[in-house]
Amino acid sequence: MRARFFAPHAHTTGAVVALPDDEAEHLTRVLRVKRGDDVIVFNGQGLAFDATVQSVRKDGVEVLLGARCEAAPEPRVAVTLVQAVLKGDKMDDVVRDAVMIGVAAIQPILATRSEVTLASIQRGRRRDRWERIAVSSAKQCGRAVVPVILEPEPFDAVAALVEERRLSGPALMLVEPTAGAEVVSLGELDVPPPREASILVGPEGGWTPGEIAAASERYRLITLGGRTIRGDAMALVAVASLFTKWGEY
Amino acid sequence: MRARFFAPHAHTTGAVVALPDDEAEHLTRVLRVKRGDDVIVFNGQGLAFDATVQSVRKDGVEVLLGARCEAAPEPRVAVTLVQAVLKGDKMDDVVRDAVMIGVAAIQPILATRSEVTLASIQRGRRRDRWERIAVSSAKQCGRAVVPVILEPEPFDAVAALVEERRLSGPALMLVEPTAGAEVVSLGELDVPPPREASILVGPEGGWTPGEIAAASERYRLITLGGRTIRGDAMALVAVASLFTKWGEY
Repeated sequence: MRARFFAPHAHTTGAVVALPDDEAEHLTRVLRVKRGDDVIVFNGQGLAFDATVQSVRKDGVEVLLGARCEAAPEPRVAVTLVQAVLKGDKMDDVVRDAVMIGVAAIQPILATRSEVTLASIQRGRRRDRWERIAVSSAKQCGRAVVPVILEPEPFDAVAALVEERRLSGPALMLVEPTAGAEVVSLGELDVPPPREASILVGPEGGWTPGEIAAASERYRLITLGGRTIRGDAMALVAVASLFTKWGEY
Repeated sequence: MRARFFAPHAHTTGAVVALPDDEAEHLTRVLRVKRGDDVIVFNGQGLAFDATVQSVRKDGVEVLLGARCEAAPEPRVAVTLVQAVLKGDKMDDVVRDAVMIGVAAIQPILATRSEVTLASIQRGRRRDRWERIAVSSAKQCGRAVVPVILEPEPFDAVAALVEERRLSGPALMLVEPTAGAEVVSLGELDVPPPREASILVGPEGGWTPGEIAAASERYRLITLGGRTIRGDAMALVAVASLFTKWGEY
């Protein structure tokens, strides 16, 4: 299988485009691809091309775009994963897995029990890191789309995101079955396949009752039953289940 | 939340039972539970009890079983995960996740591309290790059932397992969408919720065409579409999707 590289400026057959530094490094140092080699590039917005390495220099790598080629199909429902930030590497794994399963965007939020602060996320340039992980995961799973990692927000901002339609379509919040009278199972959820949807997944320690009460005004509360799913596996399980419900598989 | 311990001999309220060494060690050294403390024990076969620590000695820990208590509900479909052994820690992660999502049993098999041999599995006492991981995962996810880890078998033995009804119910093999004309999507699969089912998940490099041809006589070939799912996440995604299809969520 030819190696795949992310080239955000790849739009037109016949053009010569430079790879971003990370990608050029991966191409030359790790995969040892050379001038004249055939590769695939994708622009992160849905286009993929057969391409030929045109030049490999210290200051970068350029590729010549050939014909458009197929990438892994995108899901019919564009899901935004609204994920409470998890500790350390676990959030990295969630980003990797969410891209692999096929989400359209990831909105990190800071929940009461997130054990991480917005300041430490900014100081640690975590969003840059998550973006690199999203690129890397898109390369591996065959997508030509790199999901957007949105600016991390406090929990309270979610309501505004829904109201301003920056999150559109049905909005679902994953909770324990005991979280309240309004909680429904996925099977009971009467929502036909939408074009867009958002799904809110909590931190390791779960949502606080206050968060559930606040979110329940705008979000439907759904549950996947009584077995405890690890925080870092919940998004993967939830998106796979929603995709199944909505006929993606 | 009270700590949960695995006590395979716990069957009757009023009895005093010893914890296995691993569990006793966990109770005393890690959680520092003491004589008189309240805990929960489960026997791995579906029963859980309120219990009180009766004695803590160098040679072991005993608990007095109180009233039966509820554990996380078991899925209505008893799924046996027939998993091609993955490299190193990845198989450990699959066992952990499969127990968490709710499989009833795990049958490790050696596929052509497994990159592991039966001899090395036996020499490394890998099955013992997977059994410990299954206990640990059951403790965390709240189940009172510890799924059975069956003796690892070569791929060719699967046919006999199906024929001898040691694997009963619908048998599904996960493949790439391009694996042949008989491949159906999960949505196209016309199988009502069974009591038992088995699902065959391949190694990192996928099944060989020979394996697919051999299995297709007894297994239905199903696909989750064209995005490449990591080998160590496939079982989790597949079981979550099947559970959704069969009304578990």
